[in-house]
Amino acid sequence: MKIVLLGSGNVATHLAKALMAVGEDVVQVYSQNLEHAKLLANELKTTAIDHLDEVSLTADLYIIAVKDDAIESVAKSLKNVSGLVVHTSGTTDLKILSSNVKDAGVFYPLQTFSKNKAVSFKNIPICLEANSDDNLKRLKTLANKLSNQVYELDGEKRKVLHLAAVFACNFTNHLYVLANQLLEKNNLDFEIIRPLIAETADKVMENLPENVQTGPAIRKDENTMNQHLNMLADLPELQEIYQTLSKSIKLTHK
Amino acid sequence: MKIVLLGSGNVATHLAKALMAVGEDVVQVYSQNLEHAKLLANELKTTAIDHLDEVSLTADLYIIAVKDDAIESVAKSLKNVSGLVVHTSGTTDLKILSSNVKDAGVFYPLQTFSKNKAVSFKNIPICLEANSDDNLKRLKTLANKLSNQVYELDGEKRKVLHLAAVFACNFTNHLYVLANQLLEKNNLDFEIIRPLIAETADKVMENLPENVQTGPAIRKDENTMNQHLNMLADLPELQEIYQTLSKSIKLTHK
Repeated sequence: MKIVLLGSGNVATHLAKALMAVGEDVVQVYSQNLEHAKLLANELKTTAIDHLDEVSLTADLYIIAVKDDAIESVAKSLKNVSGLVVHTSGTTDLKILSSNVKDAGVFYPLQTFSKNKAVSFKNIPICLEANSDDNLKRLKTLANKLSNQVYELDGEKRKVLHLAAVFACNFTNHLYVLANQLLEKNNLDFEIIRPLIAETADKVMENLPENVQTGPAIRKDENTMNQHLNMLADLPELQEIYQTLSKSIKLTHK
Repeated sequence: MKIVLLGSGNVATHLAKALMAVGEDVVQVYSQNLEHAKLLANELKTTAIDHLDEVSLTADLYIIAVKDDAIESVAKSLKNVSGLVVHTSGTTDLKILSSNVKDAGVFYPLQTFSKNKAVSFKNIPICLEANSDDNLKRLKTLANKLSNQVYELDGEKRKVLHLAAVFACNFTNHLYVLANQLLEKNNLDFEIIRPLIAETADKVMENLPENVQTGPAIRKDENTMNQHLNMLADLPELQEIYQTLSKSIKLTHK
């Protein structure tokens, strides 16, 4: 497949590398910022462009991996291409593409990507949607080359999944941040808590989280909770989070 | 070392198995509930007791691994023993032991233990405190046999660590629970989000969490956040958590 990649951020970078690794051909990398496009294009040994009118009209697949609010304007510029146009967003309607191009789809990898950390696509769920059975079939064939977990999801379910991911990933990472704030304030190193973080995630790989909840809130250990709230007296923001989450744990397990 | 184990819950069970594995001798397991004591004692091929006046007076080490609010009454019953008495609690003062027995200490393994999941003690941080240098030395010798991460921490720091653990473990697991509530409500399987949970934890094994935060809140993507809050309209509890944590992310990264 000849693929044009529109975007040069974390999703674009990881996806492009995975596609090259399974033998697909990324023929162009577009970014508004030519330096960014070049950086990725050089890694992939392909061409960098920074104007949408330079996009090849004859590729098989156009992957839009830009910020959500820029997807529509990129799609509008692809009205004349002959290939399939997809975006990689959890929250954006397929309609934004299908109202601008004939063949449209969604190719949403559910993962958190960072600049300097390699991830294996084999275990990344890829969620697909398309505006025709034929387009869906083409996306499935590609997705199955990359990953063992390919799902067909409509836009509503994809949005729910994205919201669930905010809780399970973005908010979770922020709890790690808050834990580290407490540790640093007391000259304790984050290292000490890493094995606990790893095990907490590992426990839900084979269990449902509601079956392995631990801690003072589920034990209804009011003594410990009051002691903790007192310790957070000078951190009202953390105190609020402590109360909100403890209340929610008690409600869930009542 | 001859060790008496007071308690038969998750901490007691995992710790006892680890101690036996490095050649220590657990000579008695005490629980108020004889069946519970027997269950663990049988696994360890040792003696179960359910009355504190049956505790051997001549062991080298007494490990109190009962609920926090029961530690003091167990300690009071050990006034006449000749060995070192420790508890395994993150939140309980050493004084509760040292005011009752001559040789007292804390042996706090920082990990989340579940009934049916084995853990390797090698990577579990063990936090020590004692009422004399000699007692501390004895605990260090034992802890170093079990783990590569042994820390000497006073009670104040141990309490901070325990509080940080509530954020990084108990609250984190609850976010997984909430994510699963959203998924189940929409007939999506928890399986789909497991790779994301694993990667979110894995990312902070070599990075500090504040350097790898992602998601709509840190991007100040108000569109997505409003969409999410609308989706949570019939789940006010989750809406409150979404708002509280998003506000905190924005404050942290402003």
